Amino acid sequence: MRCRTNAHEWPAALAGGVPAMTEGGHDSARGASLESFFAPKAIAVVGASPDAGKIRGALLQALCKGGYAGRIYPVNPSYQEIDGLACFPSLAAISAPVDVALIAIPAASVPAALEECAAAGVRHAVIISSGFAEGDAADLALEARVAQVARRTSMRICGPNAEGFYNDLAHLTATFSPALEPRAAEEPLVANARRIGVVAQSGGVGFSFFNRGRALGLAFSSIVSTGNEADLTASEFFEHLVRDRDTAVILLFLEGVRDPERFVAAAREAAERGKPVVMIKIGRSRAGARAAASHTASMAGRQAAYDAVARSTGLIAAGDPDEALAIAAVLATCPLPKGNRVAVVTVSGGAGAWMTDALAARGLELPELSQETERAIAAWIPSYGSSRNPVDITAQAVHSGGLMRAIELLHRSREVDAIVVTISLAREKRMTVDTDALRRVVDAQTMPVLFYSYTLPSALALKALAASGVVIHTGLNELATALSAALARGRFRLPERPRAARKLPKSGEIRRQLAGPGRIFCEYEAKRVLAALGLAVPPERLVKKAGGLERAARALGYPLALKLQSPDLPHKSEAGGVRLGLGNSRGLRAAYREMLEAARRHRPELRLHGVLVQRMAPRGVEMIVGAVRDETFGPVVMAGAGGIMTELFQDVSYRLAPVDEATAREMLRELKCARLLAGFRGAPAADAQALARLIVRISAFAAEYRTSVREIDLNPVIVHGAGAGCSIVDAMIVTE
Amino acid sequence: MRCRTNAHEWPAALAGGVPAMTEGGHDSARGASLESFFAPKAIAVVGASPDAGKIRGALLQALCKGGYAGRIYPVNPSYQEIDGLACFPSLAAISAPVDVALIAIPAASVPAALEECAAAGVRHAVIISSGFAEGDAADLALEARVAQVARRTSMRICGPNAEGFYNDLAHLTATFSPALEPRAAEEPLVANARRIGVVAQSGGVGFSFFNRGRALGLAFSSIVSTGNEADLTASEFFEHLVRDRDTAVILLFLEGVRDPERFVAAAREAAERGKPVVMIKIGRSRAGARAAASHTASMAGRQAAYDAVARSTGLIAAGDPDEALAIAAVLATCPLPKGNRVAVVTVSGGAGAWMTDALAARGLELPELSQETERAIAAWIPSYGSSRNPVDITAQAVHSGGLMRAIELLHRSREVDAIVVTISLAREKRMTVDTDALRRVVDAQTMPVLFYSYTLPSALALKALAASGVVIHTGLNELATALSAALARGRFRLPERPRAARKLPKSGEIRRQLAGPGRIFCEYEAKRVLAALGLAVPPERLVKKAGGLERAARALGYPLALKLQSPDLPHKSEAGGVRLGLGNSRGLRAAYREMLEAARRHRPELRLHGVLVQRMAPRGVEMIVGAVRDETFGPVVMAGAGGIMTELFQDVSYRLAPVDEATAREMLRELKCARLLAGFRGAPAADAQALARLIVRISAFAAEYRTSVREIDLNPVIVHGAGAGCSIVDAMIVTE
Repeated sequence: MRCRTNAHEWPAALAGGVPAMTEGGHDSARGASLESFFAPKAIAVVGASPDAGKIRGALLQALCKGGYAGRIYPVNPSYQEIDGLACFPSLAAISAPVDVALIAIPAASVPAALEECAAAGVRHAVIISSGFAEGDAADLALEARVAQVARRTSMRICGPNAEGFYNDLAHLTATFSPALEPRAAEEPLVANARRIGVVAQSGGVGFSFFNRGRALGLAFSSIVSTGNEADLTASEFFEHLVRDRDTAVILLFLEGVRDPERFVAAAREAAERGKPVVMIKIGRSRAGARAAASHTASMAGRQAAYDAVARSTGLIAAGDPDEALAIAAVLATCPLPKGNRVAVVTVSGGAGAWMTDALAARGLELPELSQETERAIAAWIPSYGSSRNPVDITAQAVHSGGLMRAIELLHRSREVDAIVVTISLAREKRMTVDTDALRRVVDAQTMPVLFYSYTLPSALALKALAASGVVIHTGLNELATALSAALARGRFRLPERPRAARKLPKSGEIRRQLAGPGRIFCEYEAKRVLAALGLAVPPERLVKKAGGLERAARALGYPLALKLQSPDLPHKSEAGGVRLGLGNSRGLRAAYREMLEAARRHRPELRLHGVLVQRMAPRGVEMIVGAVRDETFGPVVMAGAGGIMTELFQDVSYRLAPVDEATAREMLRELKCARLLAGFRGAPAADAQALARLIVRISAFAAEYRTSVREIDLNPVIVHGAGAGCSIVDAMIVTE
Repeated sequence: MRCRTNAHEWPAALAGGVPAMTEGGHDSARGASLESFFAPKAIAVVGASPDAGKIRGALLQALCKGGYAGRIYPVNPSYQEIDGLACFPSLAAISAPVDVALIAIPAASVPAALEECAAAGVRHAVIISSGFAEGDAADLALEARVAQVARRTSMRICGPNAEGFYNDLAHLTATFSPALEPRAAEEPLVANARRIGVVAQSGGVGFSFFNRGRALGLAFSSIVSTGNEADLTASEFFEHLVRDRDTAVILLFLEGVRDPERFVAAAREAAERGKPVVMIKIGRSRAGARAAASHTASMAGRQAAYDAVARSTGLIAAGDPDEALAIAAVLATCPLPKGNRVAVVTVSGGAGAWMTDALAARGLELPELSQETERAIAAWIPSYGSSRNPVDITAQAVHSGGLMRAIELLHRSREVDAIVVTISLAREKRMTVDTDALRRVVDAQTMPVLFYSYTLPSALALKALAASGVVIHTGLNELATALSAALARGRFRLPERPRAARKLPKSGEIRRQLAGPGRIFCEYEAKRVLAALGLAVPPERLVKKAGGLERAARALGYPLALKLQSPDLPHKSEAGGVRLGLGNSRGLRAAYREMLEAARRHRPELRLHGVLVQRMAPRGVEMIVGAVRDETFGPVVMAGAGGIMTELFQDVSYRLAPVDEATAREMLRELKCARLLAGFRGAPAADAQALARLIVRISAFAAEYRTSVREIDLNPVIVHGAGAGCSIVDAMIVTE
């Protein structure tokens, strides 16, 4: 293979400059420069080799093969020329501007090479080399030296341990990844006019999206592997793609975010611009987190915080590569659905019913069609077909035009919000779908018209449908998930940033109570903080001696609850420190005595503040409201099913704190136990408004006191009937 | 294309008869005959045509093309010859034995053709034609005539509205399905020595398994589409494959089972023979059930019953085509895992961590490896790799032999029960895996060694790994699900059939109470039945007048509960008919008065048996125990989280009734709320043994009285501390 010239005349395509790739994007002088990262006029390959079996050889070869029109400068003192390109002994020897230097030399030599790049005025370096902060023998000092060069100079650095990047518009393959190699016997397909951009904290995974997406007929804009992120972070690349005119849908693959504020700002900006973002966050399992930590030396944030970020900014979470691509494919080829009504059009009753199950399992509905629509469809299909939704047109109707007529009739009917065609597209030699008619439907589509083939589609079908702007899905669950994700994205509204301070009383009292060294607040202490916040807490008395019980009982009235108060017993019920439903004085005294005896047996040196005497709260729905400060994203508020249900069923919802009341109500609607609040099995509706206000208040508190408050846990909160408010029955606060 | 001869000399391959395909299998003379269905010596195509654009032409063409070595007789009075085969004017004109007649003529002519087949001694007919009990214009009478021929003669009939069948060993393509056509540019692959057989109540889906499985390198034995099942049922074909020596794994695609006893017997027989069965049951959603009913005129059984059958017989439920095939692939190529410890070996930290998440989400564990094993692996990988599980060998170690060494070391270590290799196999021209070494590992494998490629595998990789007996999985979630399904299958033990009668008291009393017309038993009536069954019910009194309250209260003791007893109010709590925790006489009287007033307002003509006064049960874990009689499979017993949790979280477990105590305990272990029974957050462990005995008793009752009892619902059952038994707090029985 011979490379293009690197003589100093600009190729015509670049003479007028690279295509303008970003709109807006000026909040950071350093961030703005990523335009010349993705569409450089000149690239140097430091360590270039003629041996394509080596990474540094493969890198140069991929760059040349890809059709990149800019200049390519191999740098290696061992060669005069590589594959027809003049090879330079050093960066300084190039004596022309270099936008990007790809560095693929042994780790120990990288800092010196970076210094040389910076001195030569190189704008961006991409360190492909491994052997820094990752792996069994992590060299943190070496990684720190990389970061220092970036901080000291104006050169931005991607990596180390990165796999490079790809820009489809500039035909720029700046990576050795074999996933980008063209596939034999596969014609290039493009179904989507709106391109997909990828930021991945794993080169293997990032470029695999290209590899898999290409087979579906998906076009990409840019793909970047961020490596160890000694300098340039995933958030910066994300921000770039949010502003990139050529990117319509963004796919993020994350192990951990280093600059959470920038990340959240980019996510909000994407939502404001209406640019959908699909996020995969790995490290959900403990072993997964271990891998993320050991491999990219990146802290895997807690999953709850990522869920909160996604919910707060409209990011779409995906769980599997094919699912992520199916979602991206729907977003890149279809308008968002306006509702959850779906028509299935099938040639196989079995496959159609299976698709129906998959859609229904995700909350999508297959409405009965009007008699008018059914009759109109029936005219186009054999009598042994079915015009009822799911519509079974039979194989015969594909050939006789019934398929396209059914699609057109459903599209016009206003009775559904999406159409899912479930069909076999395996034929190698005959195209059964009328692609001209399909093109007309797709051009005019006001709703998703999705195609699922229950057989593997033939090359012919892939090509014909791609030409009509249609991706053929082959994953049943993935298609159903993608449609439901598109629906959720369509319904998402970016919440206003609530002004937390105005919701909280200006209170020196709160500050005073939270002061001092970090500790676990007992229930009675936590409740004092809540009271200072202006929240109603149930009447209760802290009793320090048995003698005080009677007076407390008289003041509060039976039935009562007793709870041991000790900073050493955050989980008091597990140590026998909670007794409920005490109906009389004798029971109260006995419970008090037994509780103290049990506690001393449990732990003789227990610090004891006393016993809290509480009136049993009236019945209601048991919920939990809480907040945690995430190490990455800061305060996150939580609401969910309370009491024993919390841990068992994990029916909880997260948001970044603070939230407004509309968001708090939305959090409650997401819960399975929302039905309890609405009035379940004859019970009256609960005071969800009071609960929402409590969530708002707790979220504001967690946000405003983020430096001192690490954890807040109100569990259970008993929500009473409409207008009757809720009782914070138990509470805990942990400070720093 | 020229067909083979149909001259009357048997081809050599068939001269000694077809290969013996079944072992055992003689409980039904009719059932046993399916051997000559799948491996016939002679086939007639009734309605054969030279036009391959028509179904009946395509059918003949497929038969000829496939390489079938038996005789093929086209039957059509319009032709003397088709494609080199003599064509017969009628079946009678063949005057030689015919094992299978494929019938593809208009529906109205089918009954006469069947009569002709039967008269000519044809053993099996397959009706491809549509236009019977399916579709908008179902012709039930025509379908009944088909069934009558089968009953009257000894000929067995598959269909109508079937898509035919395929037998790989006999090279027999008796279907027009385009899914079986060879794919251009795809070399045939075979990875599994153990073949997969398919029974599908949808031809489209059934043959799509072949189409998709083939691309993975999976070999099949037989695939059959059962159509409307006027005669031969899915259960009979299932039974055949259970006994078929050439079928090692069975895939079932079901809309509804017509002969449940035969189906369950076949499932049990498969379990006894250690032959794994993957079942897809569609019609989960209401719309899906509508489709199943309208399309194949088959009743879609309730999902719970299918779950019960699966749990009771070890069938593996699958939810998606790729998932079903991934499970079948693991079962057909690997030994079952003996435990849940998995090692992930990867070349991409990101992909490995993602796989780890997917495995962990399904209950599989990635243990830390011993220092010894880590050190041994570390010797084979670069320092920037990681020898900790998930093991990141890096791309370099694939080339240097580290991949196979890591697999071998893990295989030998006894520290894991399965190995999941997560790798990129996209290279078109270079095979990175040492397939000789792989073949040695696979030949000696004592645990699953699974390969997942995060890029789409190249033809080269597919071929090389298939030659080593390895399927390349491309679905992340599917692989994880398949491994976890294989683990569950390995742990499954077929329960003994408990002798229900011996567990129940012989009681005329029960029979007397259940006698009479079908009705809803009020709680107090239901409890009398339970008492007659020998079950302890809490002390309670039925009070018919306010004057009786005091006496009941004295006898029972406070706190009390009041419950309205009316056959018109099965959901009494929703009508204000339940009042709990009444602590004194005044409260009791007020509650009684209010309850009656509310009930009369709610429904003036309410039939009222009285008010049940009950002592409040002591605290404990709220569970539900119940049974329903499924229309298809008969009595099904259920246990799960009780009270409000039942409906909200649907944390329930089903089995076919009756069950033994070991099975009842297993049902409880499957529940998320199992942790509540084990003692949750400081609570003492509950009397799970008493609960298991209750489940056994209720299951025996539901089984023995299946003709009269339609539904039993004990909710909640409050389970007290170990040894303290459980209280059946509420109960309902519905009879026929």
